[in-house]
Amino acid sequence: MAKCSICGRKAIEKIEYARKYLCSKHYTEFIEEKVRRSIRRYGLIKKGSKILLAVSGGKDSIALLTILSKLSKEIHFKPYVLHIDLGIGKYSEVSRKIVEKAVQETNLPLIIIELKDLLGMSVLELAKKSGRPSCSVCGIVKRYLMNAVAIEMKADAVATGHNLDDIMTFILKEFLQQNLDGITKLVPRIDKINEAAAAKIRPLYEIFEKETLTYVLINNIEFVKEKCPEARTNTLNNVLKNHIHILEEKFPGIKYSFIRSFLRNIDKYPKLYMEKLMKCCICSLISSGTKCSYCKLTEKTHGEPLGMYTRNYIRKLLTGMDYQGY
Amino acid sequence: MAKCSICGRKAIEKIEYARKYLCSKHYTEFIEEKVRRSIRRYGLIKKGSKILLAVSGGKDSIALLTILSKLSKEIHFKPYVLHIDLGIGKYSEVSRKIVEKAVQETNLPLIIIELKDLLGMSVLELAKKSGRPSCSVCGIVKRYLMNAVAIEMKADAVATGHNLDDIMTFILKEFLQQNLDGITKLVPRIDKINEAAAAKIRPLYEIFEKETLTYVLINNIEFVKEKCPEARTNTLNNVLKNHIHILEEKFPGIKYSFIRSFLRNIDKYPKLYMEKLMKCCICSLISSGTKCSYCKLTEKTHGEPLGMYTRNYIRKLLTGMDYQGY
Repeated sequence: MAKCSICGRKAIEKIEYARKYLCSKHYTEFIEEKVRRSIRRYGLIKKGSKILLAVSGGKDSIALLTILSKLSKEIHFKPYVLHIDLGIGKYSEVSRKIVEKAVQETNLPLIIIELKDLLGMSVLELAKKSGRPSCSVCGIVKRYLMNAVAIEMKADAVATGHNLDDIMTFILKEFLQQNLDGITKLVPRIDKINEAAAAKIRPLYEIFEKETLTYVLINNIEFVKEKCPEARTNTLNNVLKNHIHILEEKFPGIKYSFIRSFLRNIDKYPKLYMEKLMKCCICSLISSGTKCSYCKLTEKTHGEPLGMYTRNYIRKLLTGMDYQGY
Repeated sequence: MAKCSICGRKAIEKIEYARKYLCSKHYTEFIEEKVRRSIRRYGLIKKGSKILLAVSGGKDSIALLTILSKLSKEIHFKPYVLHIDLGIGKYSEVSRKIVEKAVQETNLPLIIIELKDLLGMSVLELAKKSGRPSCSVCGIVKRYLMNAVAIEMKADAVATGHNLDDIMTFILKEFLQQNLDGITKLVPRIDKINEAAAAKIRPLYEIFEKETLTYVLINNIEFVKEKCPEARTNTLNNVLKNHIHILEEKFPGIKYSFIRSFLRNIDKYPKLYMEKLMKCCICSLISSGTKCSYCKLTEKTHGEPLGMYTRNYIRKLLTGMDYQGY
């Protein structure tokens, strides 16, 4: 039985690319140190800042919540948790409960936006009524709400739980579709562009998917184990992620060296999207056209664009909580 | 049993991305028409030009030889065949015989360079003596000789049998290694830069690997079926090619759409290698440093750089043949 390279106790995992075995205590520290280092290396979080954590309840966002909650005491920043209840039956109920429990344990402030309360419809009903695939509608709604909440509460950034495998999958997908412009967004930090778009950070940028899973498992942290019942299988994303997994197995370290050289090269890619960005004519939040996707979507489902209405809803939701006045 | 979409006879293959079944006659025509179209679309071969075909004897280069031999009568260009005998025992003997046979049938002029005659060593001996991997040494020698022969015989271009799967594999590999500069070389035609580097063309740029195989099989054309005994398995190239194969199976047409959008985007990639190119201080042929890889290699194996010697050897080999004087 392999022993921990640090303390000699029973190892629970081999870190192939770092060539060491670790026990659960040192594995946990190893992952947290990696996140700490990414935060420092990419300048993700400053002292005194307000960070909105987008937490679905899956392994990645639960690991994000746990790790950033710990680090917030060292780096002295204020994490807030945002959970969006999509109204997908039992799946959403379970997810919400898990997030509520994690928040109780870490004692962080929680903002829940319930889609059925906000729009009178679940994400599936929105998809059905708009005639669009549910994953696409879900993406529009989540991205919009994350940004809108961050803007209304004047957060310094929205943090998401995307891991290295997610990022590399997105980069390869954009490359296969030759959307070079989209590639430039896949960095650890996208700065705040203007009043319409909050900064975005990805603190798990250098953490493997397998690592967030091991982290939550060995620390007995509850997370949503079920896949979303609406999730499609055999998408290009899934197939690519699987290929990346095989690549790393055959060439340990390839994910790391890829992402590092990618970031070194980032300025060589055309960055046209920055020029194309504008403010939505309805809600004034960020948009790639005159009207943003969320306003277009709600126009289809409700007969009128609900961006401004949604911003007011969020404002009211935040009133009386301690998110204002910073 | 499926029938040919054109003539109704028994189909031998389904072309997934074109949504049709084809009999062997129409399959053959379909592939030849694709090559004809690529030649036209990318301006690969002009009337009256002299094209040096690099033919190892494998399915791709044998398909190249067969198809270009046919098309040369339509487009009125002069194909010459170059075969390099690497001296890898039985494998090289078989390869050479197959190329000689194919050349007899098509009645094209053949140039054979025998490494053991030229350098007194097989490619394996060169590898051993230089301490470099044999695949890398083989690449250096082949690239050098192809270019040198084309320069000495004043050919308009060297044509290689790289198929779409090869090209896409190379592009993905360069992307994974973030060699964006290298990506820009993976086009259907690299123009002649100066007297040191002949133009390169890839007439099978849009032909799938599976298609060259089917083409030679149904036309009963002999080709080398054995893999090179020195070839490594589980290289990044092999793994990526396999992934590309799976991608096409799951998303028919993805290879095509990738390569098309790649070529549309080609000017967006940094093209630094053009600036870095120079002439070798020994042999005056193209080099990325002051001394070319072939001169460096032979310096290691023979105690002196043999670029100039090799150019003279080729010149003598060509003397008295009809390659001169164009």
